[in-house]
Amino acid sequence: MFNWDFHLMHHGNGIHHVNVNGSLYPAKAKSRRQRWEVKPSDMANNTLNPIRAIVDGMKLTPNPDKPMIALSIGDPTVFGNLPTDETVRQALKDAIDSEKYNGYAPSVGYLKSRQAVANFYSCPEAPLEAEDVILTSGCSQAIDLAISVLCNPGDNILVPCPGFSLYKTLAVSLGIEVKLYNLLPEKSWEADLQHMESLIDERTSCLIVTNPSNPCGSVFSKEHLQKILNVASRHCVPILADEIYTDLVRCTSPSMASLSSSVPILSCGGLAKRWLVPGWRMGWILIHDRNNIFGSEIRQGLVKLSQRILGACSVVQGALEGILNAPQSFYNNTISFLKSNSQICFNELSTVPGLTPIMPSGAMYLMVGIDMGHFPDFKNDVDFTEALVTEQSVFCLPASAFEFPNYFRIVVTVPEHLMVEACGRIREFCQRHYRPRSSDSSDSNDLDQ
Amino acid sequence: MFNWDFHLMHHGNGIHHVNVNGSLYPAKAKSRRQRWEVKPSDMANNTLNPIRAIVDGMKLTPNPDKPMIALSIGDPTVFGNLPTDETVRQALKDAIDSEKYNGYAPSVGYLKSRQAVANFYSCPEAPLEAEDVILTSGCSQAIDLAISVLCNPGDNILVPCPGFSLYKTLAVSLGIEVKLYNLLPEKSWEADLQHMESLIDERTSCLIVTNPSNPCGSVFSKEHLQKILNVASRHCVPILADEIYTDLVRCTSPSMASLSSSVPILSCGGLAKRWLVPGWRMGWILIHDRNNIFGSEIRQGLVKLSQRILGACSVVQGALEGILNAPQSFYNNTISFLKSNSQICFNELSTVPGLTPIMPSGAMYLMVGIDMGHFPDFKNDVDFTEALVTEQSVFCLPASAFEFPNYFRIVVTVPEHLMVEACGRIREFCQRHYRPRSSDSSDSNDLDQ
Repeated sequence: MFNWDFHLMHHGNGIHHVNVNGSLYPAKAKSRRQRWEVKPSDMANNTLNPIRAIVDGMKLTPNPDKPMIALSIGDPTVFGNLPTDETVRQALKDAIDSEKYNGYAPSVGYLKSRQAVANFYSCPEAPLEAEDVILTSGCSQAIDLAISVLCNPGDNILVPCPGFSLYKTLAVSLGIEVKLYNLLPEKSWEADLQHMESLIDERTSCLIVTNPSNPCGSVFSKEHLQKILNVASRHCVPILADEIYTDLVRCTSPSMASLSSSVPILSCGGLAKRWLVPGWRMGWILIHDRNNIFGSEIRQGLVKLSQRILGACSVVQGALEGILNAPQSFYNNTISFLKSNSQICFNELSTVPGLTPIMPSGAMYLMVGIDMGHFPDFKNDVDFTEALVTEQSVFCLPASAFEFPNYFRIVVTVPEHLMVEACGRIREFCQRHYRPRSSDSSDSNDLDQ
Repeated sequence: MFNWDFHLMHHGNGIHHVNVNGSLYPAKAKSRRQRWEVKPSDMANNTLNPIRAIVDGMKLTPNPDKPMIALSIGDPTVFGNLPTDETVRQALKDAIDSEKYNGYAPSVGYLKSRQAVANFYSCPEAPLEAEDVILTSGCSQAIDLAISVLCNPGDNILVPCPGFSLYKTLAVSLGIEVKLYNLLPEKSWEADLQHMESLIDERTSCLIVTNPSNPCGSVFSKEHLQKILNVASRHCVPILADEIYTDLVRCTSPSMASLSSSVPILSCGGLAKRWLVPGWRMGWILIHDRNNIFGSEIRQGLVKLSQRILGACSVVQGALEGILNAPQSFYNNTISFLKSNSQICFNELSTVPGLTPIMPSGAMYLMVGIDMGHFPDFKNDVDFTEALVTEQSVFCLPASAFEFPNYFRIVVTVPEHLMVEACGRIREFCQRHYRPRSSDSSDSNDLDQ
């Protein structure tokens, strides 16, 4: 018993750790495992990636006679034609040389870096202070923290369809139900407000609005954003505004927060798209709460959640102020390139029989409708895009990956000559497989033949 | 109805999103919120940081006549006396200049970077391939993924006491119960194996072993590690080995995986400590599963969980191979500095009345026992360390923050002259408050007076 005596004498805390019912540590052999049975948790099993689920099931064997052109990856850096700006790289190298950013940053980020983001996005209609900014490991963690702080298992969130698959991946893994509200292609992907409103119930804890849209490349008008805000306001549902593409637009696009002082909004963003460094994992949450509806509770909740794994790389945080000061010409060049490539792609595909491209005005995507009735060779968009790889070595993501069948998504960040080449191959593919419906010889598509 | 007709005609997927019970979208006004009531989730509320809970409750007002010396922060970079190596900084700058690492890395990390980590840690007793390595955003995310993949809500994990508080923060936020097994100060902080074993039941899904130890700075012997492995093996409980300090030791310290081919082990580590860049958030999980007990299921589970927010900064990943090749002299200098500072601290405090420092052999910490019976001025370790700040401007973390009262933790990364100065002030403080017990005039501590 010496150890135990020593234990008692040495520090009181030993006591509450041990059972003192006669024997020191009662055996519980019966209740213990007799053999190995290590299984992944429900959370792991419920972490599903719809894009992987679709793509991994596809037989992607390119035509050996044609080099592969992948229009599927939402990463502006893959082709090397959209490098980040020298000022961005230099800012990071300066942060390294300063040797001031090797230690742990506060879990919500360095104050000076949060201030830099606040200054960059603050506007009279939606003012921001450093305390309204939480730095995260990419926009993904921003979205994860926002959903995690607002929703309990059993709650539901409203998510755009078609939409970015991460919302569902995160929500379902946390036991949160996802309700899809339709975007209307015939209205340049505006939200079906009636449908959105019909889905709201007392367990709806968050309305996710993605503007500009991935995968649609659409940008909501000020008026449409106000109508969405009215729905949120009528039913007292806070908004998670995914505004990661907010700076990649060919039109004026106000932030949601600038249009409402009553609806509490968590705006998620980051360096990934505008600064063309998605791998750097620098994201943020902007807390807009002018009516103090989130209050200190939600702010504190975000701080607590940020302490679970900390956030963005400290040197990238240290470089943030310099990165945000990249020259306007850098942004403008990216935007005009995306605009020109979108126009090329839209013009090419608008004259292809059986396809209905929808002209985007932001982000880096373009959605194309497939009139499956004209393509009897294929069951669906997955079948269609799989064959497009087999025959033409062009890979576009079937929109089933966004739960929106009979469309495919084109990423318009590829070099112009590849965009032209890819559109030519898509035309050849469609002309080969297009069948006019006997019943609709007046189908406008026939005129294109 | 035109839109709806169009909807049907235009793409079939519209159908399953809407109720077709007469009216298009039935109103549910009754079941909706009438006023704002946004509350943080249970997960946010249950994300607790024991250290903050203790420290935020302390009145930390330094003595204006003495400059503050913080021996409380487990960050080797705060005093600037332990810079990382030039090769480490250069490797990161080269990765930036290569412009090859700005895009998204795979969620488990670049293959070449995983290979570099595998090569660095592989040994004949515990071989590693690239596929056994998952790169994470710091060791915190490695621990988060490991706990998340192994444990369901309602399960329990075994955690050392005293121990790193993050295990509890993560587990409790996920609804996982934490059972504390004692480390024995009188045995250089070896685990109380009898106590550990007594805590295991059929819901025990993971045994966490921290070696070297934070906060103790202790390093388990090969024999002791084998005894722990035997407990895990007898009860079929997988091990999460937190080996972030594995390279900061003044003795031979085998990895757990090198001592067992039967017990499946997730070893968590990262660049933070050995390479002195904790802010860079570069961590990893090494999967050791030579008996195929984790199998493809746990590996797949880790991959799925890694897709929730992706992992480490891509440029740091790109620099990893170069970083791991830092010269041996760099590691040796850090280790010898920590050894010398630990020795200074231990020697100084061993002769202080009422204190029982325990000599560490690894990591960057030293634990000191307080014989509270000799310090009637103070209720407990929190009280004691608070007064130490008020009177001597020296801040040590009370071990209550590690659920181990009547001790305090000293971080030994401070410059030598500050370590000496701090120990002098601690001596002065103790001599001022020490009261010999009437009953033990023979107390050895009296000889020190």
